[in-house]
Amino acid sequence: MPNAYDYATQHADRFKDQLIELLRVPSISTLDAHADDVRAAADWIIADMQRIGLENVRKIEHDTYLPLVYGEYNGAGPDAATVLVYCHYDVQPAEMADGWTSDPFTPVERDGKVYARGALDSKVHVIAQLKAIESMLAAEGGLPVNVKVLFEGEEESGSEHIFGFVPENLDLLAADTVVVSDGSMPDPAQPILVYGLRGLVTMRLTVTGPQRDLHSGHYGGNVHNPIQALAEIIAQLHDADGHVTVPGFYDDVRPLSESERALLAGVEPWVKAEWQSLANAPQIWGEPDYSMSERMGARPTLEINGIGGGFYGDGFKTVLPHRAGANISCRLVPDQNPAKILAALDAYIQHLTPPTVTATLTETEAGAPGILIDRESAPVQAASRAYEAAWEVKPIFSREGGSVPIVAAFQQQMQVPVVLMPFGYKGGGAHGPDEYVPVDLLHKGISAAMTFYREYAALAQQA
Amino acid sequence: MPNAYDYATQHADRFKDQLIELLRVPSISTLDAHADDVRAAADWIIADMQRIGLENVRKIEHDTYLPLVYGEYNGAGPDAATVLVYCHYDVQPAEMADGWTSDPFTPVERDGKVYARGALDSKVHVIAQLKAIESMLAAEGGLPVNVKVLFEGEEESGSEHIFGFVPENLDLLAADTVVVSDGSMPDPAQPILVYGLRGLVTMRLTVTGPQRDLHSGHYGGNVHNPIQALAEIIAQLHDADGHVTVPGFYDDVRPLSESERALLAGVEPWVKAEWQSLANAPQIWGEPDYSMSERMGARPTLEINGIGGGFYGDGFKTVLPHRAGANISCRLVPDQNPAKILAALDAYIQHLTPPTVTATLTETEAGAPGILIDRESAPVQAASRAYEAAWEVKPIFSREGGSVPIVAAFQQQMQVPVVLMPFGYKGGGAHGPDEYVPVDLLHKGISAAMTFYREYAALAQQA
Repeated sequence: MPNAYDYATQHADRFKDQLIELLRVPSISTLDAHADDVRAAADWIIADMQRIGLENVRKIEHDTYLPLVYGEYNGAGPDAATVLVYCHYDVQPAEMADGWTSDPFTPVERDGKVYARGALDSKVHVIAQLKAIESMLAAEGGLPVNVKVLFEGEEESGSEHIFGFVPENLDLLAADTVVVSDGSMPDPAQPILVYGLRGLVTMRLTVTGPQRDLHSGHYGGNVHNPIQALAEIIAQLHDADGHVTVPGFYDDVRPLSESERALLAGVEPWVKAEWQSLANAPQIWGEPDYSMSERMGARPTLEINGIGGGFYGDGFKTVLPHRAGANISCRLVPDQNPAKILAALDAYIQHLTPPTVTATLTETEAGAPGILIDRESAPVQAASRAYEAAWEVKPIFSREGGSVPIVAAFQQQMQVPVVLMPFGYKGGGAHGPDEYVPVDLLHKGISAAMTFYREYAALAQQA
Repeated sequence: MPNAYDYATQHADRFKDQLIELLRVPSISTLDAHADDVRAAADWIIADMQRIGLENVRKIEHDTYLPLVYGEYNGAGPDAATVLVYCHYDVQPAEMADGWTSDPFTPVERDGKVYARGALDSKVHVIAQLKAIESMLAAEGGLPVNVKVLFEGEEESGSEHIFGFVPENLDLLAADTVVVSDGSMPDPAQPILVYGLRGLVTMRLTVTGPQRDLHSGHYGGNVHNPIQALAEIIAQLHDADGHVTVPGFYDDVRPLSESERALLAGVEPWVKAEWQSLANAPQIWGEPDYSMSERMGARPTLEINGIGGGFYGDGFKTVLPHRAGANISCRLVPDQNPAKILAALDAYIQHLTPPTVTATLTETEAGAPGILIDRESAPVQAASRAYEAAWEVKPIFSREGGSVPIVAAFQQQMQVPVVLMPFGYKGGGAHGPDEYVPVDLLHKGISAAMTFYREYAALAQQA
């Protein structure tokens, strides 16, 4: 039987050309003027899905939103496991004026990198996943698992519909695991397995003092300035070591085991290097009893995202304002509960608020809990082996600080293990000018995707 | 010899009508479209000055600014004292849409009050001062002092030129005392003598952390948020009792004598009542070892006038901002030095700033020191007697919390005692809709202005 890896090697140039072809379509989902381009990209994918032999291929469309693209392979039979693969094919806007060296929608290859908007985020994933399936079907006649492919066309514009679509289509999407193929690794030679994501609760704190804005000459000295009162409250939300002081805040935080700490130590150099290059504040700050990678992924935070009050434009007004406020968010980790955290913060702020002002805390959007993916689960183990085979280095395991809402949606709605499989590179500048993907990562991604199916099939069979 | 007070009583209706006539001229100095109206008001005043017999009457004009109006009475002879009287005749804008019951430039008398823009601020002072001179000249043939009258036409628009005009015209303006006739009393039946004004220094504090705005998910927990750091600095600028904690801040504050504390106790009920009606915060705040009137006028403050950082508009952005800042001002009392206070605050803020961020403090405008007027000086004693004679109640003595820059300019440039003589009423709503002045205050003001000249002449002769 011919070998799928050999097939992928033989067709490597065509695969790259197909990536370039798809990158020519400016599928910008955030600009209405490009809606037809998003649909054209969907059509391109559908044609390729049909060509490589996927079944039940369709564009899931609605007047008001950009299409989801769906296709499936059922050849492994009803007893085999099923994998749902998610990618997105829409992109951020891009213009030469943003600082591009060459036109963002005329892909150019330089020094083994393909430069174009969407190269990294996230069309390399779309092509890698499709070409892995193509290689196995063409060279070996089938895959050891059934596959469902779901590509989104409005990830960059807020994913307005997929969060409703998933729970309404659980039968269609039914699978034993979900592969979310998106994101980046810290170095092209170092793959990463993200097994934790933080949740989020966002709030607005408003402090009110006098009934109206006052003249700071007439009233200064006799009124507790709401900006000062707000600052005094905010200053009490962390201790000198950077711990959050809200009573109960850490009660439900799942402690880190020694083995997990050892695991996260592997990602520490990458986290530190990225901090130095991008944040580069005068000094690193954080809870001294945790490493940077632990503080990023395994510890909750309380952050002031915005503050406002009085007059802070050009010039100066000697106003004593009647109100000041701040936007506050907490990044959450398992097993913190967003509603419980909001209530704890509210109670503490009321406790801290002096009788000279009033304070109100309101949630601004629905909160989301943090997520942990079982590192011992079959899909994570299969992904780990797949990365190691393709990159010839073990992947590092990491917990990321941000949230990927689609991961939570799949996990919660489908109740199956999810695995993140990024083939991008952080240095490739997603959302910025001169976005690129190393061509190498496309090919390693195809190889890893194929190995994942084999390894997962083997592990699923054992189970 | 006929009596000037009787003359004023006989002509009371005409005087009120003249006030109403002047109020019909919309001398709005803040709107270019009304520049000719400001000049028309100046012409009206000049005509009246000439009619009542002032000499050397002139409009001091320049292409680029609204006129000063000047006139003098030299009949008391070269050995008599000279009084310079300052008022302003320009007004704030006003429109029916702001909530006026009747047209702001069609004066209406209701319940013994004249409603019109500028009635209180400050045309009642212009007319009272002119009619006092007229009454003495017409009924008694002269005044016991020489008088120079200087009326400003751009007080409401920033007094762009008078601060240059005074030092350049010290010979023209030379006098033994300056009466600044503007402002309000807390009750129409309770005149007030303001003998202290606070100075001001204004600053901007900027706190910078990372080199760019960051994603609060990726970096939250490893970066000292500049908004948090700013709040932590601000929170340390006052102690729990409301004292400013900046080392050296109070070093030069002139202590209050027991007699001055007793004097200021007289104004305390008015300060408290105004606070309740206008500020009305949940609770009074301030240094517990001082009364409200002392805290308003005799104690310096450190106020946060504005704050900004991150995202604080509609909605929410989970940004970890690279910078945050605050506008800060200090109200100063004698003998604090603005430059010294700025330096002390800067040093303290640098001391408070942790190594995780940088902080810079810059002055935004030139600072001004606080002012104290000698309560025992002849003009203040004369004003006190004049108020008591006209109102049949002793004036209360007060130190105001704000600044009146023209008082500082006269005091510093001319090196003579200044006295503030307000005939307005705080409840009359200067700058707001339905501004009014009780007619009664016009007539008492005329009477007090006349008595002031007599009393001051007598005291000046004794000296």
